[in-house]
Amino acid sequence: MLSVESKRYVLLQEYRLHICMYFYLKEGGSFVHVGISSSTINHQARSKIKNIQKSSFQIATTTNHQQLRRNAHIISMHWLIRWLTNSSLLAWTILFCLSAATSSFSTTNMADFPPPKDYSHLIFETKQDNTKWFHERGPLWQGQAFSLQIKEVLYHQKSLFQDVLVFDSEHHGKVLVLDGVIQCTERDEFSYQEMMAHIPLYAHPDPKKVLVIGGGDGGVLREIARHPGVEEIVICELDKDVIDVSKKYLPFMAKGFDDPRVKVNIMDGAKFMEENQSSFDVIITDSSDPVGPACVLFETPFYKAMHGSLREGGIICTQGECVWLHVNLIQPLVKAITSLFTTVEYAYCTIPSYPSGQIGFIIASKGGKGCKVPTRTPEASVQKELRYYTPDIHQASFVLPAFAERAIFGSDR
Amino acid sequence: MLSVESKRYVLLQEYRLHICMYFYLKEGGSFVHVGISSSTINHQARSKIKNIQKSSFQIATTTNHQQLRRNAHIISMHWLIRWLTNSSLLAWTILFCLSAATSSFSTTNMADFPPPKDYSHLIFETKQDNTKWFHERGPLWQGQAFSLQIKEVLYHQKSLFQDVLVFDSEHHGKVLVLDGVIQCTERDEFSYQEMMAHIPLYAHPDPKKVLVIGGGDGGVLREIARHPGVEEIVICELDKDVIDVSKKYLPFMAKGFDDPRVKVNIMDGAKFMEENQSSFDVIITDSSDPVGPACVLFETPFYKAMHGSLREGGIICTQGECVWLHVNLIQPLVKAITSLFTTVEYAYCTIPSYPSGQIGFIIASKGGKGCKVPTRTPEASVQKELRYYTPDIHQASFVLPAFAERAIFGSDR
Repeated sequence: MLSVESKRYVLLQEYRLHICMYFYLKEGGSFVHVGISSSTINHQARSKIKNIQKSSFQIATTTNHQQLRRNAHIISMHWLIRWLTNSSLLAWTILFCLSAATSSFSTTNMADFPPPKDYSHLIFETKQDNTKWFHERGPLWQGQAFSLQIKEVLYHQKSLFQDVLVFDSEHHGKVLVLDGVIQCTERDEFSYQEMMAHIPLYAHPDPKKVLVIGGGDGGVLREIARHPGVEEIVICELDKDVIDVSKKYLPFMAKGFDDPRVKVNIMDGAKFMEENQSSFDVIITDSSDPVGPACVLFETPFYKAMHGSLREGGIICTQGECVWLHVNLIQPLVKAITSLFTTVEYAYCTIPSYPSGQIGFIIASKGGKGCKVPTRTPEASVQKELRYYTPDIHQASFVLPAFAERAIFGSDR
Repeated sequence: MLSVESKRYVLLQEYRLHICMYFYLKEGGSFVHVGISSSTINHQARSKIKNIQKSSFQIATTTNHQQLRRNAHIISMHWLIRWLTNSSLLAWTILFCLSAATSSFSTTNMADFPPPKDYSHLIFETKQDNTKWFHERGPLWQGQAFSLQIKEVLYHQKSLFQDVLVFDSEHHGKVLVLDGVIQCTERDEFSYQEMMAHIPLYAHPDPKKVLVIGGGDGGVLREIARHPGVEEIVICELDKDVIDVSKKYLPFMAKGFDDPRVKVNIMDGAKFMEENQSSFDVIITDSSDPVGPACVLFETPFYKAMHGSLREGGIICTQGECVWLHVNLIQPLVKAITSLFTTVEYAYCTIPSYPSGQIGFIIASKGGKGCKVPTRTPEASVQKELRYYTPDIHQASFVLPAFAERAIFGSDR
């Protein structure tokens, strides 16, 4: 008999695997899954796949397991056991039994939370003054919630990948919400976008080619476009709806797409990087939280893919969650990629509309001496337009509170 | 006919004056107020005074106007006009007409918000999962709210001065709330307390006598007590209930009171400073927001009182609100006290449970070259116990985002 924790763990592993499979399926395709799942687990997993409405879920058809390269650690174990047992079905069965038994299946623990199912409860009206609020609750920030007062809901649809909500707020301008989580508000988005783009770009002596993964709102593109030396800006966004919605409702960010150097790919960033080895000076991953489809972006294989796609001397900057909430998620990831990159550092900026009012960045380099000190500074005309970034705050943003420094980098630092 | 804004302004000025008067009244005392107030305004002002349940409000009795020294700018104008007109009643009348007409009565605008009346709406239960939440809404952070999930309400009473609530939260430990505003949570209070105490103390070469105004929870005392060189720690807290409640429910902070160097005064800090000129090396004002009784702590006369009570080379550190919300309140205050102190600087720390996830400090010195670089560093044994402060974060905390630097100190910085 499996414990509740083990059952939950299996469900999560299954969910992540299914999402991976899903990304690699052709329209209408299907895949086999055989494991130890109880009917409850299967029911839940099935409902997830149905939720994203691309393929019908069938437990009868085979598909090409080789396509599941992204979850390399799962697949390699599968192939090993398959080779030992000479049976694919048996291999999956053993694999999931193992997963449930050891609870140490994943190299990191970034994805230990199932995505919420329904977001209707996130909008509520108060009885006292009949004001309407968006109430942001999530498994990654239990027991706390940030709320914004809604003036008008402008858009609310499910895309192929996620729940997309845009509303006009009373005091924070337009707000983009994906899967119930605030991605940006017009009032404070500049802080995140500027720091995410300018820390790696001003740390790099001469960035020519820049890759953005995610970031479909265009905000990071807008900031990269401020660098005249950059010749090519490629963006890989999985969800075309995010781009379309941003162009319609969030032009202050989506104007980033107007720059002629920007090339848009609606595709999976990991796949693109595999096909473009040693190609980029800077890679920026502007992702949502590690819940649902974005889970894989917080795992070692994805960082290996970024490393492979970087030129020598290149720098990556990825959304790195919050030290007040997620040191237990950040630390193993930072540790896991330390052997991969020459330097791995962590910076942060304040941004009121993100959980706990700040967000961090994992900044790593392939060669070089680290990114804490900018090698270039903004032209006066550019600095005038920036609202958060300065060369001073570049350096200050790497200075962590004692508890975070200890937890992420160990007590000797 | 007064405009709505003017009426509101008069109400606020009146409210602030009444609070000042109230503090100086004996139990059962009363005071006269004659002005241009409409009945609505009087009704509102009256209800405020009643709310704090110390004195009945009468518009018929006189009191000693000389006691109103704290609102010096109002009082001095009153005396000037009284001298000119030879009538106290007429003086007050002219004064308030003038206030309404010019709307430039106050040297700063820190107090332009009336306190909320009732806090019952701040606790609500969600229908979806029957969880109980404390919902922090306030006039100083319109359109946004931070919520904490409640495990159990431990204490909820009105003190002489304010509404005092203590609850145990699901994920943030014990929480103290005054007048509907979170003052500290067990999970993150160390950030604020450490930075508020250690920035001025480590900036000062040899602090012997330290004064704390407010800070009845004891957290700042706990941090000051880490400095072996400090010989005397005086605290002036107006509200004894806050101390008593903290000792009972928040011992992790209230243990600050246990240090034998601590002397507790239940009194108004401004009065104490007047009686103790040139006495302290460091003065720390750990106040609530400028709503209600704490308004006066955000005005120039209070800073003059601190300056007077500082020894040469002394440093003050006061709660300075948040750059994401209050630059329009911080900037005029910083400007107003620049001529008073040798250096006026602004630092901040991150703290998830404060509005927008951070809080700032106004740090000013009487002599000296500023406080951005610590003159001393913590002993290894002390540093080990600190969870936020390090000498590096001391310096980094003064580096403001571009927008805040421009707004508070002007674009030339």
